Formats: sequence, structure tokens, C-alpha cells
Amino acid sequence: MEHKKTVQKHEVRKPEGTKEEADILKIKKSEDFSEWYNQLVQKSGLADYAPISGCMIIRPYGFAIWEKIQRWFDDRIKATGVSNAYFPLFIPERFLKKESEHFEGFMPEVAWVEKKDDGEERYALRPTSETIMYDSYAKWIRSWRDLPLRINQWCNIIRWEVKATRLFLRTREFLWQEGHTAHATEEECEKEVALRASQYRELIETQLAIPVLMGKKSRSETFAGADYTIALEALMPDGRGLQMATSHKLGQHFAKVFDIKFMDDEGKEKLVWQTSWGLTTRTIGALTMAHGDDKGLVLPPKVAPVQIVIIPIYDNDTKAEVLKEGEKIREKLEGKFSVRLDDRDVYSPGWKFNEWEMKGVPLRIEIGPRDIKSGQVVFVRRDSGEKKPVKESEVEHAAGKTLELIQENLFRKAKEFMTANIKDARNFEELEKLIQNRKMVRAHWCGYAECEEKTKEKTTATIRCIESETSEGKCTICGKPAKATALFAKAY
Amino acid sequence: MEHKKTVQKHEVRKPEGTKEEADILKIKKSEDFSEWYNQLVQKSGLADYAPISGCMIIRPYGFAIWEKIQRWFDDRIKATGVSNAYFPLFIPERFLKKESEHFEGFMPEVAWVEKKDDGEERYALRPTSETIMYDSYAKWIRSWRDLPLRINQWCNIIRWEVKATRLFLRTREFLWQEGHTAHATEEECEKEVALRASQYRELIETQLAIPVLMGKKSRSETFAGADYTIALEALMPDGRGLQMATSHKLGQHFAKVFDIKFMDDEGKEKLVWQTSWGLTTRTIGALTMAHGDDKGLVLPPKVAPVQIVIIPIYDNDTKAEVLKEGEKIREKLEGKFSVRLDDRDVYSPGWKFNEWEMKGVPLRIEIGPRDIKSGQVVFVRRDSGEKKPVKESEVEHAAGKTLELIQENLFRKAKEFMTANIKDARNFEELEKLIQNRKMVRAHWCGYAECEEKTKEKTTATIRCIESETSEGKCTICGKPAKATALFAKAY
Repeated sequence: MEHKKTVQKHEVRKPEGTKEEADILKIKKSEDFSEWYNQLVQKSGLADYAPISGCMIIRPYGFAIWEKIQRWFDDRIKATGVSNAYFPLFIPERFLKKESEHFEGFMPEVAWVEKKDDGEERYALRPTSETIMYDSYAKWIRSWRDLPLRINQWCNIIRWEVKATRLFLRTREFLWQEGHTAHATEEECEKEVALRASQYRELIETQLAIPVLMGKKSRSETFAGADYTIALEALMPDGRGLQMATSHKLGQHFAKVFDIKFMDDEGKEKLVWQTSWGLTTRTIGALTMAHGDDKGLVLPPKVAPVQIVIIPIYDNDTKAEVLKEGEKIREKLEGKFSVRLDDRDVYSPGWKFNEWEMKGVPLRIEIGPRDIKSGQVVFVRRDSGEKKPVKESEVEHAAGKTLELIQENLFRKAKEFMTANIKDARNFEELEKLIQNRKMVRAHWCGYAECEEKTKEKTTATIRCIESETSEGKCTICGKPAKATALFAKAY
Repeated sequence: MEHKKTVQKHEVRKPEGTKEEADILKIKKSEDFSEWYNQLVQKSGLADYAPISGCMIIRPYGFAIWEKIQRWFDDRIKATGVSNAYFPLFIPERFLKKESEHFEGFMPEVAWVEKKDDGEERYALRPTSETIMYDSYAKWIRSWRDLPLRINQWCNIIRWEVKATRLFLRTREFLWQEGHTAHATEEECEKEVALRASQYRELIETQLAIPVLMGKKSRSETFAGADYTIALEALMPDGRGLQMATSHKLGQHFAKVFDIKFMDDEGKEKLVWQTSWGLTTRTIGALTMAHGDDKGLVLPPKVAPVQIVIIPIYDNDTKAEVLKEGEKIREKLEGKFSVRLDDRDVYSPGWKFNEWEMKGVPLRIEIGPRDIKSGQVVFVRRDSGEKKPVKESEVEHAAGKTLELIQENLFRKAKEFMTANIKDARNFEELEKLIQNRKMVRAHWCGYAECEEKTKEKTTATIRCIESETSEGKCTICGKPAKATALFAKAY
């Protein structure tokens, strides 16, 4: 009966109908984190490797999470003065070259379009859109009345990575949003940088249930062409830092080279002050790593494509009755929650449990003939495995409450993990050892690139962000007076 | 005071504060349709030419219309079993070559990525995604339980056009949605083709207020690799046909070359039946042409980013009172409608009238001191210019009613135009003359490509769609027995 095809590398096989064959994870999170992640992303249906080196396919289940993230963030930025637009994928080489630091930063990863004829310019596939957008900003902005200008776009981005591909985390094409604003004053500009960083924080903490560390990047990690970068960093279970989003103060670097000037209300010509800020599909990778377990994904209810799955448990005699009751429960919950009744006949309840656990659905509701007799259903939480009977009349209220508890619990657990895994280093030896032991390290830093460089060479860890820009201690690396407290970790 | 910059070609100058300087159209729709369109798209803020040959920038106002279209259609397809996903921009050359008709159809317009090293494959930038998606479908589909499979993506598409660029209508990059489904039977497949065509029709007629002609394409205009294509064609004011959307029955062409098979419920291996269907940002161009007038855009309320604009009319003495009243009206309408109070002090009411007329806002509400005394406001319809006083207490209800009337009126006018401009041709001479006179022509057709080709050579018109697949007359071109009634027009 089984249809035979050669199973290719990275391919997810469709399960074939019995519990035993359900496509479970072949490895534990604690055994081989990287392989666990790789299996999980594919088996849960989030994404696949594409038949193009370095690329991925975001499958419907993964894309549905991205849509939740998009909807939430898009609503927030629109409520704070941002409009969406669309600029070309193609960026003329001469634009990229205008801001030299920017060009050097992106040059190695730029992919180019084959020229159709010799007269044509050389076009890059956008690695980011500052240059193409600011060429227009220079035309659109004339007076103070045109400011602030706030434009965002949701689009694909191309960076030709050479390092090994990791689904969602390192691919040659990914999806993101990039916001680009222009302001009359430096003060407004800095307020904007902070506003967007705080919106990212809210998104990541309240929706994705991942606590973040927020702070400036060191010079070497600052966006190519920015005054400074505010990073939102999360600590992953393997001790690596993952950059979740960034908000850049571009200052007047681009305004100078693209000649973006405005006439102020006193008739004086001035350069604008600019920001840019972005968040990518790698947040889905972070979500997977932060909450997933040996059974599969564990999705925070607020971004789960399916929040509740109802599994009817029946035999031939009780089928009609149980399905009818399941349908009744589904109707009760629909509209308020994203709910699915899994009434597929070809799979056993146990098989379904496995599948929905793999997909990380936050709440499972089981219903069988005995439950119906006692006027109840059984709630099973994906995050804790906790089972409890709930009276049928209370299902709606209890479901809302349980999803809230799951959301809170996931954040609390992730926060506890983060707190427990950031350690202070008093000297370089300690720093080295802590990094080796997969910790994020808080250390005094003199502010010089040399010490950052030395740390990177010896430990591969970098400064993920600067926790505080004052410090009374001595640099953990060189012993000179410290100027900041920085957080070091290996990075994704 | 005025900030001087060189005004570049195609650049939209920002107006500078007096009515006289407002950026009105320099040409009438009846004088030079093409130039009128070009000015209108830019001056209304829909789009700009990009600094890359053949590309456009979709500005926030134009993109907001696209977002309305997206939201409406996305909701409808999701309600009928479709999920969104994201496949790579890059398509290996060997994939494109698999279906030879498909490859030949797209080859001339394909843009390629410069190779980074010699070992790498040659990658195309997607001109459409059948091949990259169906490679995955072959892996994901195993049994009848996996069918139907319905996936859609919203993305950018690259077709390296050599003809002159026309904003929204002909650009090297555009945005679209592409739906791709696979089914167990031919019957289901054909139902899907019809369902998506009918959803497009509803979108275009009820939201964009543009009547469409729906029918099969002739063989020469059928999608490369399809059994047949259902086209939704609109007739533009210059007598040209504009393809608004297409729904293709791919049949088993791609299933064969990509080996997309499933095991049916009796254990037999079968090829799937497939469809694909798409709608692009050119619909925004159609909207502009169909309804726009010499003052600017005229947007159907259902896709207007701003449905109602309130213009307060005051002097120094009455300013506070009028603005307060304007704000009261705005609050009344907010939530139900997309409404803006234009309280900018630097522009005169007349200047504002011009600007919002250019932007096609369906309903303007004027309010001045005398109106306040009589407890009324003045409604001005963008479509008809009709002015009428409305009691303040009735504003909310009247606004809803007026927007409905505008939506209906735009569709009725467009439908009348279409009906009046489709003419029957009894012989080839008539056909030639009618095409010359910018009509769409209904004519009997023998079904042979030669007659289509001859018509194209002599008139540049092509068959936009086949109105009926039976005909009792004789072919208008060759005089042989006709097999169909076809609609001929020049095309965008």
C-alpha cells in the first residue's frame, strides 16, 4: 500500500496513518541541539530546505506564524505614523557605493543580476534598502511640512551567505520589514529609534514570549552606516545570543551622501536625521529554539496558528455521539480562538496527539464517551503536559484562562533560563570558562575594539549588547578602567 | 523662501502652500490618455519611476490600495481552503527547462543572477513559481489524504520587459499573488479554476467597481504550460483590453514533468490535476484609468485608503469653533469609515479641495461657520461633483449611504461605457475600422491561429477572451464556419 519514493535529504516524510509511524523527533534537545532544531523545523512543517543552495521554503504552518507577527507589528507601526510602501528589489551599484562604510559592510554578501546588455548598470539584489529609498526621500522631502516621513516595507532580502545554511537563522533569502524614517531634529530621531526598539521588545516579549536584552551594539557590530544600533538580543538554550531585531540611529550619514535636505520653518536649509529598523523571519527560528522540547514545537498562544485542537476519542458505537459533541465544543470556541476539530478517521487519537504536539498547539481538548456522560472534557496543556477535567459549561472561559496561563508560563520559564544563564566574569579566565560552559557573560569593558577582538579570537564570543554605558570597575580583558558593562556570548 | 532643487524627469514636486501652486494635471484625459495617466499616477502619489530602468516605486498611497485588495482577497481564499507560504525568489535553470512550453514562454523575459562561483547552478529570478513550487509538491504529496493542496504566495515577480515602462502596467518588477493547487480529479481541478475566476470577478466588480469580461483565452494567449486559461478582461477608456487576472487549468502537464503523484484510496498511483491563478498590482493601474478624470483619481469607496475628508473652512475669528466642530464630526465617523480631518493651517481650503480631488477621496465634507449655525455640513461627491447639505445629526447615516451610492455609480458608469464600446463586426473591414475607432470588437471566429495572427498583423488587436465557444455564423476574418464568438481589442 505504501507509496515508495526515494526520501531525499532534508525531506519530511508524510506519516502514513498509524501511531507507530508518526513522525517523531529522533533526537533530544539536550543531546544535539543543532540537529534537534533542524529536525524540528522540518517535521513540524515550519520550513524546508529549498532545492537552491542556501535557501529555504517557508511552509504554510511557518508562514502563518509570520503572518501573526506581521499583523501585530504592522498594526502598531501604523498606529504610530508609519505607512507601508514598496521599493525595487534592484539597487544600482553606484547607490550602494555612495556611503562607503555601508558598501564595505554589505559588499561581500551582495548578489548581482546578470546584465542583459553592456550599456546597463550593474544591479544588486537588495541586501537592505537604505540607498534606494533615500534617493527618493531626497526628492520627496522639501520642507519641514514633509517631516517626519515614516515608511516601512515588508519584503524579501538577499544576502549571499557562504556559511552553512540554518533554516530561518542563516539563509540567502529571508523576509523582513524595514522601517525608514526622516526627522527634522536629532532629538526626534533618537525618540524614534527608542520607540521602535520598545515596540520590538513588546512584540518579542508579549507575543513570542521571549525575554530580550536591549542595548547599544559595540562599534564593530553597529549597522554599516549608522551612528549607533540598538539591538534586542535573546539568549538561546545553547548559550548563544540571537539578534531578534535592531533599531538604528543613522544620524546624518545618508542624508549627506543622498542630499536629503529640508527647509525649516525659518527658511533655513538643513539635513534630515534618519532611522532604520528591522525584524526578520529569524524570529521564528528563535521561537522554535526557545520553547521547543523533545516532542516538538511549543508555541505561545498569541502567535500559534492553531491555539486549540479538539481530539474526539471514540469507537464505532460512540463515533456519532462523540463527533457531535466535539463539533458543539468547536462551535463554542470558534471566533474567540483559533480552533480545530481533528475528526480525521484514518488516524488514531494517539497519532493525533503526537502530530499536534509536534506542531506545538498550546491546548488540546480531549473528549470521549465517558466525558460526555460526566458533562466534561479534558484539557491538556502543551507547555506543562498538565491534564485536567473541565465542565462543559465552563469550556470557553477555561480555555481563555488556560491560554493566558500558557503564555505567561512560557515567558516566565524563558526569563528564568535567561537570568540563570547570564553570569558575571571577574577576569578573562572566568570569561573564557563561562563562554565555554554556554553562558552569556556580563563583564566590564574598556570600550576598545582590541579587547573585543581578543575575546572573539580566544572564545569566538562577541559583545551582543552594551548593558550599561557606565562602569566603575576595570576592563575584564585588559585591566584598564572600564567604560561600560557589556554582555558577551557566541552569536547566531 | 522656496527651496530650489533640480526637478528631475518624472519627479513629483511637493506643492508649496497656495491654491495656485497646487499640483494639478496639465493635460485632459480626452486629450492624451497616456500622458494623462502618467501624470496622474505620479501626482496623486500612487507611484514613481524608480532610478532603475523599467522599475517603479509603489508609494504609500498606492500601496494602501494594494493592501485593501490583498486583505479582501486573502480573506476569501483562506475561507476556501488556501494557505499562504513563501518559496524562493531563485529558480534553478534546470527547473524552468523541465516544461518546455513553459520555458520557451518565459525565457525571453527571464533575469538571471550573476554566479558567485563556477560550480554553482544558474538561477533565474522568478518570472512565476510553478516549477519551484511543484518540485516541493512532488515531495509533500503522497496519498489522497494530502489532497487537495492549496497554497498561495504574495510576492515580487521579475520579468525583464524591453518595451517602454508604464507605471503599474508594464514594469520589470511587480507584486502579485499566485495560487497553486493540486487535486485528485480533473473535475475538482476545473471547479477550482472556476472558483478562483469567480472570486477575482467579485473582487474586481464589487471592490474596484470595474466590470469584467470573463472567458477562455485563445491558444496563443494561453499561459505557457496550461490546458486553458480563464481571463478576466476589462475595457479601458482608450479602447484597449486590460487583463485583470487569470486562472489556469494546468491539467497534468507539470504533474508529469515534476512527477507529482498520489496513491488514491484504492491504492492506485495517479498524477494530480493542477491549477494556478494570479492577480497583480496592475489592477491599480486599471482602477486609475477606469475611474479617473481631469481632476485626478476617483477611487471606489471600498478600496479608498481615505474614504472621507473633512475640510474646515474658517478665518481667524471662527477657527477654534470650526475646528472643534470638524473634530466632532471626525469622531462620529471614525471606526466606521476611514476618515481624515485636514486641519493643516498652511493650506487654503481651495488648495485642499484640489489635493484631495487629485487623490480621489470619494466624499468631501465641508464645514464652515454658517454651516454650524444651521446645524449642518456640506457633502461633496468626488464622482459626480454633487453638493448637498446634510443635517449634523444625520452625518453618519448619510455618509454610509453616499459611499454606497458612489460605489454603485462608478460601477454603473464603467459598465455603461463597456456595453457601449463593444461592437459587433460583420466583416473584416468593419473589424478593422472598429478597432481603429478604439472599440472592443465581438466577432465570429473559426478557431484557427492564422485568423488571429492576421488580425494582429493588420490591426494590432488580439483576442482578449472567447465569449462563447459556440457560434453559428462564419469567421469574420476568413469566412469559414465559425466555432466561437471572440472579443478582439488592442491590449495593455
